[in-house]
Amino acid sequence: MAEAVRRGEVGPAARLMRDLDDEIPGARDCLRALFPYTGRAHLIGITGAPGAGKSTLTDQLVAAYREQGKTVGVVAIDPSSPFGGGAILGDRIRMQRHSTDSGVFVRSLATRGHLGGLSRSTGDIVDVMDASGKDVIIIETVGVGQDELDVMRMAHTTVVIQVPGLGDDIQAIKAGILEIANVFVVNKADLDGADTLVRQLSAMLHARAPREGMPSPEIVKTDASRGSGIDQLVAAIDRHREMERAGAWAERENHRLERRFLEHLRDALYERGRARLVRMSCYDEFAKAVASRAVDPHSAAAEAASKILGEDREQRETRK
Amino acid sequence: MAEAVRRGEVGPAARLMRDLDDEIPGARDCLRALFPYTGRAHLIGITGAPGAGKSTLTDQLVAAYREQGKTVGVVAIDPSSPFGGGAILGDRIRMQRHSTDSGVFVRSLATRGHLGGLSRSTGDIVDVMDASGKDVIIIETVGVGQDELDVMRMAHTTVVIQVPGLGDDIQAIKAGILEIANVFVVNKADLDGADTLVRQLSAMLHARAPREGMPSPEIVKTDASRGSGIDQLVAAIDRHREMERAGAWAERENHRLERRFLEHLRDALYERGRARLVRMSCYDEFAKAVASRAVDPHSAAAEAASKILGEDREQRETRK
Repeated sequence: MAEAVRRGEVGPAARLMRDLDDEIPGARDCLRALFPYTGRAHLIGITGAPGAGKSTLTDQLVAAYREQGKTVGVVAIDPSSPFGGGAILGDRIRMQRHSTDSGVFVRSLATRGHLGGLSRSTGDIVDVMDASGKDVIIIETVGVGQDELDVMRMAHTTVVIQVPGLGDDIQAIKAGILEIANVFVVNKADLDGADTLVRQLSAMLHARAPREGMPSPEIVKTDASRGSGIDQLVAAIDRHREMERAGAWAERENHRLERRFLEHLRDALYERGRARLVRMSCYDEFAKAVASRAVDPHSAAAEAASKILGEDREQRETRK
Repeated sequence: MAEAVRRGEVGPAARLMRDLDDEIPGARDCLRALFPYTGRAHLIGITGAPGAGKSTLTDQLVAAYREQGKTVGVVAIDPSSPFGGGAILGDRIRMQRHSTDSGVFVRSLATRGHLGGLSRSTGDIVDVMDASGKDVIIIETVGVGQDELDVMRMAHTTVVIQVPGLGDDIQAIKAGILEIANVFVVNKADLDGADTLVRQLSAMLHARAPREGMPSPEIVKTDASRGSGIDQLVAAIDRHREMERAGAWAERENHRLERRFLEHLRDALYERGRARLVRMSCYDEFAKAVASRAVDPHSAAAEAASKILGEDREQRETRK
């Protein structure tokens, strides 16, 4: 399977992603075998408020990269359907015009059920696409929660879409995301207020203290539904990548991988630690103490962690 | 300090919250002493998209509860300011008319810097307010990410605000939140589309399979800026609380506390586990293996977790 994925075959790649998601035995081994072949693709994060035009812009970007002869992967992170395991927004009309193009691979990821693990799942999918030889991988997400922020941190180049007239509240929400933006897009540039928005963004960026090794983000105006401004956006993204490659690319790449390692470590410690607490027959005791409000959750957790990690023993052994 | 907080003194409560946030030694002990006196307040979660009118509605609810002679705490979870440790949106004009009322305690919490720990910080603040004797505690948050969802799960009664004309995309975002809604508010009920929205919500709720012990949410129309519909909202919230009290209150309360215990446990295991890995002088080795793409982050984390937990030793001892 790993071989077929590396050759860029679509079916095996899609199956591997599904298997990873369903935690089918063997899928993890396959990804392990593929991992040394990752790290080649340019990862582009695209984020913005609902209604900012992320999907349309992504679609236009895909078309532009395809014209350059590049192969493209898209990971669309979607708010999940309200009820049941129903339809996911992304598995719909989106990107339909690319559906017969074997150089484009689109994968939607529901946020539901990914309790804080969204960036882990996204990492897996990106790895598969990367190993399968995609030149560009676009990760599209609604720019809101901490989870989405973690996902965006995976990208080499982060594009933040703003639109005129969405109000101050919206701008504020994306606070965390603003800090990792490399390119700003003012989409729906035909709307009233687009120029004002560009000026506001520009003033904001100038007011900000420059950060070392972090070039000031460019601002690009687009009208994604008509396709205007897309070439300028592609050029701005390329310029950012070149600047990065000339600078701190390797260091940032290490940080990205270290962060992924630590996220997995957090999960692994929690899962195994909790299981050990149950095996030690202590779990119910702690749960009861907290439920009766005899012990607060923080203190109970500190004590439970000590037991799980055998810290008494560690201290005794240190003293010896 | 714990005594002063229990007597409902504002200064000490505010200081304790700050100290907990800054991890000042002793603050945690104070909260531990207060914990047995928590569990009395009715926790109301209020969520909705940006621009739905959460702050205005919260302000009106506070006024209504004050008229009933109840004391009120408000935890406003705000998107943080874009740059630096600057002004937090909530510490501003919001709730100004209650600022001289000692029966109202407002605390804003920035989302920035709370990497996945938003619900832990909110839990601390709610505990302090609860122990200080507040009858009602309103937790207000933008209904978007997983973090906010975790925060909402802390509430006894969750109110989800919808407004006409925000589009399908917005509704979809709140998917996770919809599932935990106890009362729906259609705010800005004077706008076109309000009745359609009520009908859509109602249809959606009827289409949903009823869940055991989970009464179908009420829908209340309000115009928060004019104060209309607030009495009906208070009544709906009260009805939900009574139904809960008659039903699965204790069981849900246990679940809430258990979830808080587990969140703290996850943090504690991660922090201590990571520190142990450094003490064992293995950390750099793992980081390097991942950075060179020799080992994938998941496999490296699994191996690191085994080392931290001394699973070899555990297995040897089991075999003996």
